[in-house]
Amino acid sequence: MAATLTLRQIVERLGGEAVGEVGAPLTGVATLDSAGPGEIAFLANPKYRSKLATTRAGAVIVGPGDRDAAALPRIVSDNPYAYYARTVALFHPPEPVRPGIHPFAQVDAQANVDAGAQVDAFAVVGPGSSIGPGARIGSHCVLGRGVSVGAGATLHPRVTVYDGCTLGARVIVHSGAVIGADGFGMARDAGAWVKIPQVGAVSIGDDVEIGANTTIDRGALDDTVIEEGAKLDNLIQVAHNCVIGAHTVIAGCTGISGSVTVGRHCMIGGGVGLVGHISICDHVTISGFTLITKSITEPGTYTSGLPFMPHAEWLRNAVHLRRLDELARAVRATAGDERERNDD
Amino acid sequence: MAATLTLRQIVERLGGEAVGEVGAPLTGVATLDSAGPGEIAFLANPKYRSKLATTRAGAVIVGPGDRDAAALPRIVSDNPYAYYARTVALFHPPEPVRPGIHPFAQVDAQANVDAGAQVDAFAVVGPGSSIGPGARIGSHCVLGRGVSVGAGATLHPRVTVYDGCTLGARVIVHSGAVIGADGFGMARDAGAWVKIPQVGAVSIGDDVEIGANTTIDRGALDDTVIEEGAKLDNLIQVAHNCVIGAHTVIAGCTGISGSVTVGRHCMIGGGVGLVGHISICDHVTISGFTLITKSITEPGTYTSGLPFMPHAEWLRNAVHLRRLDELARAVRATAGDERERNDD
Amino acid sequence: MAATLTLRQIVERLGGEAVGEVGAPLTGVATLDSAGPGEIAFLANPKYRSKLATTRAGAVIVGPGDRDAAALPRIVSDNPYAYYARTVALFHPPEPVRPGIHPFAQVDAQANVDAGAQVDAFAVVGPGSSIGPGARIGSHCVLGRGVSVGAGATLHPRVTVYDGCTLGARVIVHSGAVIGADGFGMARDAGAWVKIPQVGAVSIGDDVEIGANTTIDRGALDDTVIEEGAKLDNLIQVAHNCVIGAHTVIAGCTGISGSVTVGRHCMIGGGVGLVGHISICDHVTISGFTLITKSITEPGTYTSGLPFMPHAEWLRNAVHLRRLDELARAVRATAGDERERNDD
Repeated sequence: MAATLTLRQIVERLGGEAVGEVGAPLTGVATLDSAGPGEIAFLANPKYRSKLATTRAGAVIVGPGDRDAAALPRIVSDNPYAYYARTVALFHPPEPVRPGIHPFAQVDAQANVDAGAQVDAFAVVGPGSSIGPGARIGSHCVLGRGVSVGAGATLHPRVTVYDGCTLGARVIVHSGAVIGADGFGMARDAGAWVKIPQVGAVSIGDDVEIGANTTIDRGALDDTVIEEGAKLDNLIQVAHNCVIGAHTVIAGCTGISGSVTVGRHCMIGGGVGLVGHISICDHVTISGFTLITKSITEPGTYTSGLPFMPHAEWLRNAVHLRRLDELARAVRATAGDERERNDD
Repeated sequence: MAATLTLRQIVERLGGEAVGEVGAPLTGVATLDSAGPGEIAFLANPKYRSKLATTRAGAVIVGPGDRDAAALPRIVSDNPYAYYARTVALFHPPEPVRPGIHPFAQVDAQANVDAGAQVDAFAVVGPGSSIGPGARIGSHCVLGRGVSVGAGATLHPRVTVYDGCTLGARVIVHSGAVIGADGFGMARDAGAWVKIPQVGAVSIGDDVEIGANTTIDRGALDDTVIEEGAKLDNLIQVAHNCVIGAHTVIAGCTGISGSVTVGRHCMIGGGVGLVGHISICDHVTISGFTLITKSITEPGTYTSGLPFMPHAEWLRNAVHLRRLDELARAVRATAGDERERNDD
Repeated sequence: MAATLTLRQIVERLGGEAVGEVGAPLTGVATLDSAGPGEIAFLANPKYRSKLATTRAGAVIVGPGDRDAAALPRIVSDNPYAYYARTVALFHPPEPVRPGIHPFAQVDAQANVDAGAQVDAFAVVGPGSSIGPGARIGSHCVLGRGVSVGAGATLHPRVTVYDGCTLGARVIVHSGAVIGADGFGMARDAGAWVKIPQVGAVSIGDDVEIGANTTIDRGALDDTVIEEGAKLDNLIQVAHNCVIGAHTVIAGCTGISGSVTVGRHCMIGGGVGLVGHISICDHVTISGFTLITKSITEPGTYTSGLPFMPHAEWLRNAVHLRRLDELARAVRATAGDERERNDD
């Protein structure tokens, strides 16, 4: 499946400057550690610079500062990591879309599937739904009524999209993701719970990627919104009426409660929790495993989380966590006595 | 899909008192902020009372104390939030069940599907399973052998129910949920693990709702039980042999270890963890992101979790968490010296 | 479905010593608390020893030290818990494989399904994939191109395996698991994100078990690896390029970031987080809900996590967590004054 390319062919397509022998055929991309003579490696993190001397790679992608740090054939790019990403894509072009509806797919007569779209076996497309040109609907995907899938989108197998949800162009959704299930809304009444019908939908912008088994709930009255270019990892929960800003990335196992607004260009680590009804401004980074309990209005990095320790040490320390207030009072009392004495 | 209703029609169906113009047609429900003249809004939280003066809504649902706080047409209800829930349901009645088995469903000859039940395309229903009247089995659901689904239950697309599990009447299960997979039970033997067959099942009471991609494992010997009226959000793990009490609600991303008993009318936040083999009594609230490490025998609210801080501040503080015991000793020593001195 | 067995028949098959009446028929396994006269119970944890006097069980499995602690018919085994596991399996033998491809399965002409394998309704098997003898592919499983499933493996319904992934012999995968979705790899470029094609795969060793809705991402360049005998619970995220060592067990809701190496024979609790690019040595135990922020090089048990408290108490204590550094400075200052004074 992988192509063969020379350095010259790569820079013709991706730009950058090729230095040294540019005509030798390369068969793929690998790390500096594992690359062989037929492969191209990359140096994106300066702490691995010393590997340039020992790598067996046939070529390397480097930044301008490392232009002369390597003797081997190389490509110089302002952004070697992004260049690496695009080089991998050259060697591994995506499989072409095979337009058509599989005979075992179940597409409603009232659905509108573009002639250039691909719908695989056992997929279900409900009435009023539309699938754009170049989109792929994988096996076993279930699209309800009135779902819209943009041009060039890819739904991997086993994705559910509930009624009325909208996915932009080039969206990628991985297997098992569920888009548009009911938000978790209930009213208490006489000791039991009355379900609040969730009549908003989910609106997903262009170029969003959604990981495996991630769930994005529909809104109660208004929509839940994922803006363009946002990237969500696996097993993330986005509750009803959240707005996730453009180009924000969220790592796996994070849970976002209802009606949270996350700004643009944020980076949210894995296993993070956000309580409901708060706002996070643009350009915020949240460390993994942090609980955010109120709105953040200043860009920056935010963290909680107790450092881990050997268990015996933790037992000795943790007991004081329950008594911090007492400890602080004791310190204040002693320091007060101290101050009085020093004032003598 | 949404109906048109007047205040008079709403109170005829749901009770409460209509005040002011009761004959104008309304087309839906919206928030005080977003409602237009043809929509009805609601005031359930007193902190939004001032919005009554500025809303463009055509009508509003209020509590008895706000009967005269609004000039616009209104419904007075003892529980405006529950009234709102029921009003949304009036405007958005659930789609009617379309009884019948889709020709592309795969229903075993030994299964018993009520004539009033709906089984959608590509659903699989195993031998000995029974589907009650008015139940819907969504596309791509897989029900094993001897599964029982109660009257009026809704399984959204792509739900798995393993052999022998029982779902009560009016249960709702969202897409991707897995009910009855094997509990995580193993015995160590000579450095490897011997699987303990999980021969209990899962028993789910009436009116339970289970969120998308939530997993509820079958019991090892006895059943895992979810009692009536419990509501579980998305991406929750309920391990083998748990009992979740009636009308308890659990928010997303929470994990409940094996053989835990949670009482009735509890409220468990998101991202919570409960260690195995403990009991939580009735009427307990657990804050989001809290780890519960032992049984709780008194109703109340319980919390753990480190407050988040700017990362630089966290670095300065977190180092002391590893030295709390040392710090406490220093305080005791100083306070002791102090006490001795004061005793002088 | 369950068999009837005598103590004599059990020890004939599983070893151990039968003591007392060995010919009475038993119908199943139960706990000491719930077993009736026709059932066999087990005592694996010495703290339940007193139940031997009160159990209604017809027989019991005990360790050598409890050989004479019970009067009822018994089996003495060096490892009563593992013996219990195997006894349950005797009473509940797995359903036999029914070789053949269901007429509603969609198996590519270029796939290689062993004549002794079972492929259920609506399963999809892509070109170049191979299914070993005695393997079962449940309903609605989707196997991409070039997937390999080993002999005797069981894929429960609704499992996705992306292109090129390999599953060893006797692997068990529960419903909703997703193996081989793209790792979460992106390069930032001019404020947006460039996807890094993930061209590694996932390689899963023999006798691995993977829980419901767990996700294991494919590697960026090299493979993600789960070694033989590892056991993963539900809703776990294993990111790209991780290596999980042989016979390691991981409880539910745990998230493992990219390029983490976990050793062999580790035990990782539920809700744990591991940051990226670290290594955990063999024989490490990590308590539930712990965040591991750096490599661990010594076997042992590691913990973090704040103990839970009644909420009011937590409010009093948590405020000091933001001021620990200040508190520690106050203690040092006071102790310093104190030392000076004592030096007087």
